[in-house]
Amino acid sequence: MKTLVNDIKENDNVDSLFLVKDKSSSITKTGNTYLRLKLRDRSGEMEARIWTFVEAFSESFSRDDFVHVKGKAVSFQEHLQLNVTHIERVKEEEIVLSDFFPTAEKDIEEMFQSLIQVSQEIKNSHLSQLLHLFLNDETFLSRFKRAPASKQLHHCYLGGLLEHTLSLAHLVLRNIGHYSALNLDLLLTGSILHDIGKVDELSFDRSFDYSDEGRLLGHIILGLERVEDKIRQLPDFPKDLSSLLKHLLLSHHGQYIWGSPKRPMTLEAVMLHYLDDMDAKINGIQQFLRTQVPEGSNWSAYHRMFEQSFYIPPTTLWEEIELPTRTVRNEGEGGE
Amino acid sequence: MKTLVNDIKENDNVDSLFLVKDKSSSITKTGNTYLRLKLRDRSGEMEARIWTFVEAFSESFSRDDFVHVKGKAVSFQEHLQLNVTHIERVKEEEIVLSDFFPTAEKDIEEMFQSLIQVSQEIKNSHLSQLLHLFLNDETFLSRFKRAPASKQLHHCYLGGLLEHTLSLAHLVLRNIGHYSALNLDLLLTGSILHDIGKVDELSFDRSFDYSDEGRLLGHIILGLERVEDKIRQLPDFPKDLSSLLKHLLLSHHGQYIWGSPKRPMTLEAVMLHYLDDMDAKINGIQQFLRTQVPEGSNWSAYHRMFEQSFYIPPTTLWEEIELPTRTVRNEGEGGE
Amino acid sequence: MKTLVNDIKENDNVDSLFLVKDKSSSITKTGNTYLRLKLRDRSGEMEARIWTFVEAFSESFSRDDFVHVKGKAVSFQEHLQLNVTHIERVKEEEIVLSDFFPTAEKDIEEMFQSLIQVSQEIKNSHLSQLLHLFLNDETFLSRFKRAPASKQLHHCYLGGLLEHTLSLAHLVLRNIGHYSALNLDLLLTGSILHDIGKVDELSFDRSFDYSDEGRLLGHIILGLERVEDKIRQLPDFPKDLSSLLKHLLLSHHGQYIWGSPKRPMTLEAVMLHYLDDMDAKINGIQQFLRTQVPEGSNWSAYHRMFEQSFYIPPTTLWEEIELPTRTVRNEGEGGE
Amino acid sequence: MKTLVNDIKENDNVDSLFLVKDKSSSITKTGNTYLRLKLRDRSGEMEARIWTFVEAFSESFSRDDFVHVKGKAVSFQEHLQLNVTHIERVKEEEIVLSDFFPTAEKDIEEMFQSLIQVSQEIKNSHLSQLLHLFLNDETFLSRFKRAPASKQLHHCYLGGLLEHTLSLAHLVLRNIGHYSALNLDLLLTGSILHDIGKVDELSFDRSFDYSDEGRLLGHIILGLERVEDKIRQLPDFPKDLSSLLKHLLLSHHGQYIWGSPKRPMTLEAVMLHYLDDMDAKINGIQQFLRTQVPEGSNWSAYHRMFEQSFYIPPTTLWEEIELPTRTVRNEGEGGE
Amino acid sequence: MKTLVNDIKENDNVDSLFLVKDKSSSITKTGNTYLRLKLRDRSGEMEARIWTFVEAFSESFSRDDFVHVKGKAVSFQEHLQLNVTHIERVKEEEIVLSDFFPTAEKDIEEMFQSLIQVSQEIKNSHLSQLLHLFLNDETFLSRFKRAPASKQLHHCYLGGLLEHTLSLAHLVLRNIGHYSALNLDLLLTGSILHDIGKVDELSFDRSFDYSDEGRLLGHIILGLERVEDKIRQLPDFPKDLSSLLKHLLLSHHGQYIWGSPKRPMTLEAVMLHYLDDMDAKINGIQQFLRTQVPEGSNWSAYHRMFEQSFYIPPTTLWEEIELPTRTVRNEGEGGE
Amino acid sequence: MKTLVNDIKENDNVDSLFLVKDKSSSITKTGNTYLRLKLRDRSGEMEARIWTFVEAFSESFSRDDFVHVKGKAVSFQEHLQLNVTHIERVKEEEIVLSDFFPTAEKDIEEMFQSLIQVSQEIKNSHLSQLLHLFLNDETFLSRFKRAPASKQLHHCYLGGLLEHTLSLAHLVLRNIGHYSALNLDLLLTGSILHDIGKVDELSFDRSFDYSDEGRLLGHIILGLERVEDKIRQLPDFPKDLSSLLKHLLLSHHGQYIWGSPKRPMTLEAVMLHYLDDMDAKINGIQQFLRTQVPEGSNWSAYHRMFEQSFYIPPTTLWEEIELPTRTVRNEGEGGE
Repeated sequence: MKTLVNDIKENDNVDSLFLVKDKSSSITKTGNTYLRLKLRDRSGEMEARIWTFVEAFSESFSRDDFVHVKGKAVSFQEHLQLNVTHIERVKEEEIVLSDFFPTAEKDIEEMFQSLIQVSQEIKNSHLSQLLHLFLNDETFLSRFKRAPASKQLHHCYLGGLLEHTLSLAHLVLRNIGHYSALNLDLLLTGSILHDIGKVDELSFDRSFDYSDEGRLLGHIILGLERVEDKIRQLPDFPKDLSSLLKHLLLSHHGQYIWGSPKRPMTLEAVMLHYLDDMDAKINGIQQFLRTQVPEGSNWSAYHRMFEQSFYIPPTTLWEEIELPTRTVRNEGEGGE
Repeated sequence: MKTLVNDIKENDNVDSLFLVKDKSSSITKTGNTYLRLKLRDRSGEMEARIWTFVEAFSESFSRDDFVHVKGKAVSFQEHLQLNVTHIERVKEEEIVLSDFFPTAEKDIEEMFQSLIQVSQEIKNSHLSQLLHLFLNDETFLSRFKRAPASKQLHHCYLGGLLEHTLSLAHLVLRNIGHYSALNLDLLLTGSILHDIGKVDELSFDRSFDYSDEGRLLGHIILGLERVEDKIRQLPDFPKDLSSLLKHLLLSHHGQYIWGSPKRPMTLEAVMLHYLDDMDAKINGIQQFLRTQVPEGSNWSAYHRMFEQSFYIPPTTLWEEIELPTRTVRNEGEGGE
Repeated sequence: MKTLVNDIKENDNVDSLFLVKDKSSSITKTGNTYLRLKLRDRSGEMEARIWTFVEAFSESFSRDDFVHVKGKAVSFQEHLQLNVTHIERVKEEEIVLSDFFPTAEKDIEEMFQSLIQVSQEIKNSHLSQLLHLFLNDETFLSRFKRAPASKQLHHCYLGGLLEHTLSLAHLVLRNIGHYSALNLDLLLTGSILHDIGKVDELSFDRSFDYSDEGRLLGHIILGLERVEDKIRQLPDFPKDLSSLLKHLLLSHHGQYIWGSPKRPMTLEAVMLHYLDDMDAKINGIQQFLRTQVPEGSNWSAYHRMFEQSFYIPPTTLWEEIELPTRTVRNEGEGGE
Repeated sequence: MKTLVNDIKENDNVDSLFLVKDKSSSITKTGNTYLRLKLRDRSGEMEARIWTFVEAFSESFSRDDFVHVKGKAVSFQEHLQLNVTHIERVKEEEIVLSDFFPTAEKDIEEMFQSLIQVSQEIKNSHLSQLLHLFLNDETFLSRFKRAPASKQLHHCYLGGLLEHTLSLAHLVLRNIGHYSALNLDLLLTGSILHDIGKVDELSFDRSFDYSDEGRLLGHIILGLERVEDKIRQLPDFPKDLSSLLKHLLLSHHGQYIWGSPKRPMTLEAVMLHYLDDMDAKINGIQQFLRTQVPEGSNWSAYHRMFEQSFYIPPTTLWEEIELPTRTVRNEGEGGE
Repeated sequence: MKTLVNDIKENDNVDSLFLVKDKSSSITKTGNTYLRLKLRDRSGEMEARIWTFVEAFSESFSRDDFVHVKGKAVSFQEHLQLNVTHIERVKEEEIVLSDFFPTAEKDIEEMFQSLIQVSQEIKNSHLSQLLHLFLNDETFLSRFKRAPASKQLHHCYLGGLLEHTLSLAHLVLRNIGHYSALNLDLLLTGSILHDIGKVDELSFDRSFDYSDEGRLLGHIILGLERVEDKIRQLPDFPKDLSSLLKHLLLSHHGQYIWGSPKRPMTLEAVMLHYLDDMDAKINGIQQFLRTQVPEGSNWSAYHRMFEQSFYIPPTTLWEEIELPTRTVRNEGEGGE
Repeated sequence: MKTLVNDIKENDNVDSLFLVKDKSSSITKTGNTYLRLKLRDRSGEMEARIWTFVEAFSESFSRDDFVHVKGKAVSFQEHLQLNVTHIERVKEEEIVLSDFFPTAEKDIEEMFQSLIQVSQEIKNSHLSQLLHLFLNDETFLSRFKRAPASKQLHHCYLGGLLEHTLSLAHLVLRNIGHYSALNLDLLLTGSILHDIGKVDELSFDRSFDYSDEGRLLGHIILGLERVEDKIRQLPDFPKDLSSLLKHLLLSHHGQYIWGSPKRPMTLEAVMLHYLDDMDAKINGIQQFLRTQVPEGSNWSAYHRMFEQSFYIPPTTLWEEIELPTRTVRNEGEGGE
């Protein structure tokens, strides 16, 4: 079983798999060559050193390889460091991806099946065909199912884009009945496609970062091109409908200042923007709260993007209340 | 039956009830005194003149009175004007309020019963008791059921505050199951109380305007005082719970610049802000679209607050699609 | 010869061609039907009335038709009004477009030939082929040569888009030698294509306005789609080059707040943004100064977009100086 | 020859000239006094220690002196440190300024001669005389030729102000012919004088910093005072011309928020602002790219002022293209 | 005695002095020439017509002349209009300035004597001499005593600049003792000189407007030049002191966005900014309240610059309280 | 007598009182347990270690206790560290508060007596009674006299809230006479109560921080609740007066962006905002200057909130001037 970086303590003997993040050679005061490594898994990263058989080991693996490492953890200048006695490359097929990268808690295939189900709610044949093209494009799906939804802000884990997409589609289903005159087919299609450009904007094979075209063009434009590309395969797709759908993608950030080249101009675009923003923010805050609340405190650390801290009410506040096994009534008596 | 101002045409003989908006006396070139009036109902307002029996008529009614008017519509300098031959005051009890003021389309008592039902979802005894105090305070209710939700932006009609409050509470019910860890009791209470200060901020007896304390203090503060006032009657109400609830009210505008003295710091406050904002915006746009789309156009007039126009997709776009008698699936398979 | 609206004075007998902007029927106090028209040409618009043969005339033309009108100019309520005695429809082929719409001062075909010449400076075969596709696409060119560059701000006349495009390309040629390391081919291609989406964003057949897709998607996105469409026809077009070129289009507004979904990230994008912005502003101010400086004043009216007035130095300031027949030295001794 | 700080490696014996940035005495655990120094040249700075003959050495030089140093580079706590065995003061005349401070690549006197040439394009006798006064004021020139154009943002090296000034004047020459109605004399004078206040705003004898009056008044005001001072020597200088010229200086930052007390109100001021801004930005980005692009990356580090990174296209993109020995056509066929 | 424009009623016979604001000739339907005038005094302006002896009258006066007018007020299209029977030019010496322009309520010479007194509090000989130069420069004083402090915002009346200057100096005296370490001499001098550039920025001979150099350079720069000009006459004036004083002028608007090229960097500059801003705002609001509160209302009209209305508490609130004959400490020397 | 942390030097034997800020146990390389402490007083904090009698000592005191410590200061890795030989808890009554926390320089009881005096200027019986309730509420006063006025920005020391309150009240007295029509009673009451919510917003028993309700509700709201609470005890308190007073509290930050839910709408609110802001800024800058000006410099460090540095004029500037023994009018009652 995987030994996680964060669990390693001084004097531990380590025998486990890691990802090589950095690799460079250096020279000791006495003139000997040694290797400096950074090893990583999903829990964090640590320094490592190879003092023996340097040349042989060095040739056997590269940066960004997964490796099997044996060694001993020692303390050097108040930091933990792994003195490696054995290291060898392992193939990507032999590792468990979720040992190395943060991964969605929910099962990816289950989420995808849910998304298929949601997409079947769509009755408009043009939109339905368009989605069909996407949801049966295996090249696309291989990235779509794995991509995170962002580098740092929300759903930043493998499967995060799928999770966020499904979550937004479900929010659309929950809220659509509340207002008359909103078009469900358009909204559902928009919710499923709104972030697909992230498949190209982000690179996520070894770490979460932006691709070159991701930085130069952004996921809104990249997604639009993917949509345009599929619509081209549907010669009867109405141009008006195409404009409306593209407008949903273009305007879903809501404001110029947040990178939307257009602000929402239809009721569907307005709702999609609010639900997407709410889902991203709530997930982002929840992720933040998981790691950034000091023990014994009800206040999170300062969140730089929000420029504030968040508060977690003391659980005692609700203790007296037995959490009800209530059947939440979602059905539509509301403002509809 | 009421003849509406907007339906009056040149040469019509008019015999109906109106509200006197302005009343002043003036003098003709030939030295005779006459009365200049503005008459109003829910459809608009028009000029009127009294040329005969001026003194007698003048004493019989005042500005802000409802009056029974007979006269003839003539055109003067390209505008319609009513030459009044008879006018007399009628009592407020004799008029139908919705003839004179824009009024919610839904029945006010039905909406109120729905709100009672929603409030019964709350299990926390403190919050439940607090709501009970509000929902049984007849003085409060007499204003709460009648108040608009704003002067111009959204739900600007009698019953609008109740409608918006109920709508927001329903949105909370629809969305609460989607995320774990959100407290339904707190959110429902917050949604029901978030705008109660508007009962005091707005005056809506003759026209929709701000009260003095409304302008000086604002509905957020006025609502907080009403909450504080009721909590004082509940000596066991936990202080922490009180802070959390008040925080929902204080932060529901989301940003300093929108008049919130605090930004949302709890997950409940974040969700309440998004749903409230979405409900206000969608209702506001829908109201705007009802009157501000030129015939034959798919684009609304320019909306000053949004600094843009809105688009209504051509209905032909969806015509081919038989609108499904679909059972919308709201239940909670979502990102929850 | 065309009689311009702005030149018509009280009591003039008019016999000329106009564009019908508005057309509606109305009824006189004595119960006769008459027609109210708005007639327009490039100099302005005026009210007109048809009092005789109303029915026959009314059937013979519609709104947005060009018409031959005879009549007499009279003054009504301090405004000039044309009493029409004869009106008949003329075909679009019979009119001179520049009588009716503001039109570039420079000859359109000459400008287009200059643009062809500039495009031949490009040595990179991919970019050269791409431009070739555009500059030989007659459907595209028929709109590109006629489109204005904006509705109100700059180059707002037929041929304005071409003029601005050519002007920007020339500015690129003038400035490219000044800095090392900037790629001329990319910059020239970017300058020629940067605003092509305006061909679709604007409608300019009868008045300058936005098209539906223009409002929903904007010229940046519409231009990108046109570029993508042509690149598809060039299977060897390098993807990196495509991203760089598209980035120029996406970022040429320079800031999110001005509708750019990306800010300039390459030196070429930075330069293109500055030169484009300078050209638009200088042309816009010059156009504004042409009509908005009160006689006898050195200050223009208040310019709403700039939130200021502009100053035209008194010509006497330079009079003493014989304007030099100087050979301006543009060649590149500069900071290069 | 100068040994640069950045080239020194562990165990090197060093014998070279440096600038003393910091100098303080300290005490070892065993109670002996030693000196802690920071030594600097144009490549960077390093720690140094004097353990022997402390008192004698200490008296022989001060902070901000140039010194001749002998010693050995050792590693202490992972940082390089120079153990000094000999140190003595050298006079400023003996050093090569560009060994110690970043310096313009172009020859300062050549640039100045170019500026003289450019200034001779000016035909207006008042402006010409004004420039003459500046360009023959040796006290002024001794600072003007040496000053950087800013502390951190662009042209931050000795001679940078001259380089930027010349560059802007050349840009004016390149662009002036493109638009009619712009006054070349005014623009050239404005470009040459626009930043002269930096001669007083910055101090640049030992490091680049702001002077007291520079911080309190800023280069715009200080430049204005220098211009006013010279104009006083020209009793016939027209007041209108003086206002126009000063307006160019006052408004060249373009926006209040960037420190301009006035926004550009003449066409000349508009163009000067754009060209100045473009020149500063392009030079600033180029300087940044020179040092802030990690090896192997096409992306620069994050630039704090721009709040983004910059992209350097892969050189392979253009490799196939033989760089043309093209005669760039700058002459004025453009939008003029 | 002067008959004020605002007091004229239909059918009044008028015989009084006015300022001619506009003058143009026009033609009646029957082909006769007549003159259209706008007449003005401090209370407002009105239309006037000359129907008889048109040519003779027309030659006898020009726009911007003061005239003696006889005529009768009639109503035309709901507006009052003066039919002139006699008109003749009067010399500027014969009119009372305050009949035509809004004028400070306080006596100008008394205010000036107060300012002299305040200036005598200054002990620093350099600052004292500097002020002496200003306060004995009759050319300067003739404008300084008459200038308004702004066109629209505050102290917009003849003598307003002097009143605001004196008021600020008194505020400095009132507050200086409250904080230790603030230099009274510097602050008093700064307060007296802070707005002197308005003497040149504004033109106020016939109406309040900006001069050309006022628009191009602004009062901050123009004031700085006046200060620099006087300091030149004081060869021993310390440069540091000069910088400090100029910094007060440059930074007194407090923020870049309000046109200050520098923000306050000394304690004196901070205090001067706050007191100046407070004095301008309170005077501006008081002026606004004088004319912009509808009868019977406690709320002013909407103030465009402040983007809000202001509230005047009902006087009844304080009625019960006998206004104390309290000797408020501090009384007296202030702008009261 | 107290030995201050900042005065301790290497090798000093220390015997004094401190506050325990942090306390944790750790293990040496040789396996022995030791204690790591942070000790603090008003001058700063330092590391300390307990190597002997670890268990016994550890049980005798906790974090946030005051302790009597004996030990020796040694240098470890370039930092000073106290090796503790003896430590024991002392009671809070035995310490001098101002040894441990920054404390107002002025005597708290004297300041409070001044405030009482100021409050007696108020003649309005309602306001006077209201203040009486506050100034005789011992529970309130015990916090009010001790609270700082903010965590970091101004008056950040024990007694700071009282000092700032008194200072603002004195500023009101100094300035009230300067403008007619301002109500002294309202302004004085507003100045005394404007920040009372800080009593609840901040916690200041061991360090200056925000309380939970302080973060969730803020001092403006908390102060309003305290005022409301007292007004409830005064049944005759006029509602209008209550609104006016609360408006002063709500609007005293002046702008939405600074957390005011309302902007000042009365003249009193405008003045209170300016004087409060000026007092906070001047005190904040003075505090900052006390510690943040490097020796030998006239410029402070960069102030992050102001985004600038501040300048202290060289004292030599005023030296020549014998500081006048001037009797500044106004002296006396102020914060001096």
